[in-house]
Amino acid sequence: MPEQMHRIALASRPTGAPTAENFRHEAQPMPEPGKDEVLVKVHYISLDPYMRGRMDDGKSYAAPIPVGGTMEGGGVGEVIASNASGFEPGDFVMGYMGWATHAVQPANALRKLDPAHGPITAALGVLGMPGFTGWHGLMEYGRPKKGETLVVAAATGPVGSMVGQLAKSMGLRAVGIAGGPEKCALAVDRFGFDACVDHRAHETASTLRKAIAAHCPDGVDIYFENVGGKVLEAVFPLLNTHARIPICGMISWYNTGGLGANAPSGGLTVPALWSAALVKFMSINGFIISNHWDRLPTFLAEVGPKVAKGDIAYLEDITVGLENAPDAFIGLLEGRNTGKQLVKIT
Amino acid sequence: MPEQMHRIALASRPTGAPTAENFRHEAQPMPEPGKDEVLVKVHYISLDPYMRGRMDDGKSYAAPIPVGGTMEGGGVGEVIASNASGFEPGDFVMGYMGWATHAVQPANALRKLDPAHGPITAALGVLGMPGFTGWHGLMEYGRPKKGETLVVAAATGPVGSMVGQLAKSMGLRAVGIAGGPEKCALAVDRFGFDACVDHRAHETASTLRKAIAAHCPDGVDIYFENVGGKVLEAVFPLLNTHARIPICGMISWYNTGGLGANAPSGGLTVPALWSAALVKFMSINGFIISNHWDRLPTFLAEVGPKVAKGDIAYLEDITVGLENAPDAFIGLLEGRNTGKQLVKIT
Repeated sequence: MPEQMHRIALASRPTGAPTAENFRHEAQPMPEPGKDEVLVKVHYISLDPYMRGRMDDGKSYAAPIPVGGTMEGGGVGEVIASNASGFEPGDFVMGYMGWATHAVQPANALRKLDPAHGPITAALGVLGMPGFTGWHGLMEYGRPKKGETLVVAAATGPVGSMVGQLAKSMGLRAVGIAGGPEKCALAVDRFGFDACVDHRAHETASTLRKAIAAHCPDGVDIYFENVGGKVLEAVFPLLNTHARIPICGMISWYNTGGLGANAPSGGLTVPALWSAALVKFMSINGFIISNHWDRLPTFLAEVGPKVAKGDIAYLEDITVGLENAPDAFIGLLEGRNTGKQLVKIT
Repeated sequence: MPEQMHRIALASRPTGAPTAENFRHEAQPMPEPGKDEVLVKVHYISLDPYMRGRMDDGKSYAAPIPVGGTMEGGGVGEVIASNASGFEPGDFVMGYMGWATHAVQPANALRKLDPAHGPITAALGVLGMPGFTGWHGLMEYGRPKKGETLVVAAATGPVGSMVGQLAKSMGLRAVGIAGGPEKCALAVDRFGFDACVDHRAHETASTLRKAIAAHCPDGVDIYFENVGGKVLEAVFPLLNTHARIPICGMISWYNTGGLGANAPSGGLTVPALWSAALVKFMSINGFIISNHWDRLPTFLAEVGPKVAKGDIAYLEDITVGLENAPDAFIGLLEGRNTGKQLVKIT
């Protein structure tokens, strides 16, 4: 057992986009598990857009990370000491261990993984929080119907690629939006989107809208919202009567603070949005997947076998070394990653 | 049988608020019913905010009334000639006869009324389209739970008063918003709202917000949206996590055209609205009751007996004479009426 562990702490709150100075890499004494707790050696940590919100102070749907606190997040690892029945050294687990090499966790906050069922990293992506977010949002709030058209951005990310593949498997037309020609090619070739539009090729919402509209001859029935900003503005007027909009995120605005609340207005006004919601009988639902863990077994039962068979593809972007997590996270917010962003702890 | 009938036609499309010049009162030859049709002598016509939208040209959820066409709307009346089985002279019916003294209607577009079950005017208000709108929106999209707080504007109108009374009967706190101290007193004394705030006493959304907040110590769980504008802006920041917003209308914006789409932006921005929808897990649903006629029998079975017993109160504002319908309608859009606006045809 090493005497020390390493972690990344929040050194200061970012103003706008986070920089390296907002993070601090530091060593700490190895913690010891108490009653009903286990010590986990982390193998992979997950980097996700929602973490940007936790770096801000102020009221939101989750408490902010305190300055000096460990950056929060999910990870997978191996139990190396246990004071909890049901957990033995050598067990693989998923939990919210934070950006750290080791963590003590209460047993009831961990989910056991069976490495025989596939790579443990899947529990952070395609079969973890992001994949589950895509599945739940689409099924519960998107209510997809064969023959309809769905649009989702960040199409090669773990949420967008799940949404697009599920939509295709149910007979919908799926149009992705992604940043750059490489990601757009991946969305079509790897994930089976009918088309993918490069938002970086369009300075304004109106030219982006034309490009999307060209691939949506029957309009848009489901807009799965994970980015906000220019994409929202581009897609909104294309929505059909009875459109559904599940909202799981709005990454394009996160660096403006308040998870988007402080972002500048674009060309879409509240009266225009609100009156369209009325006259098009829209259904708009914001959600956070952590309110819906009760649905996880259903998700795993439905989607797990499809992943095992290769019917649902996924991509991982693995950065090596805890010390590189801040840069990988900054890159995630800029869209530099391709696929689910993970950090391998060495 | 008189040889002539009278109607109000759309003389021209309004710019902003409608004026008397937009309407034309004219006589026409009495129509004759064809096969499976009946001739109805109209007793009351209903005036409703949605009609303002039909006066505009342009795409919306219903086709515009053509210039020169009869103003559309629901009414109740008496069959005076019938070529349809199941309908006899003397039968009372509800249908979309328009602003007219008489109308020929296909039998399958009419609903028979039993005057023994209460006043026939109820079929235009408390037990008609507006009451049904309030019930369906609240039950289906509002999902009220005991102990929660609901806010609805136009609290003495036929939608708002239904919503408030249903909410109270289910153990919610109901806070109304209305124009002027008389309506506010009525909302509390007649309809049982816990409180009612006079929006005319507040120039800005922010002082209106403070007045509403004072009556909503636990925040707002359901905002039943029928007005838009200043009230939306005032209520929005008071909404709790898991808030539900059924949207049936936005009368405050109708005179700006496009059912609100062209209204000027207030202080609420799209990013602020959108991010609140996310972080508060809001459920926002626009609807038009004409998509839900299949639920009418359930509504009548549930709410009809409560109206008969006096457990659900209602108010009617009756203008006499078809020729006065335009002025009554202009007044409705200004909030001059108190309760359901009807026109009695003499």
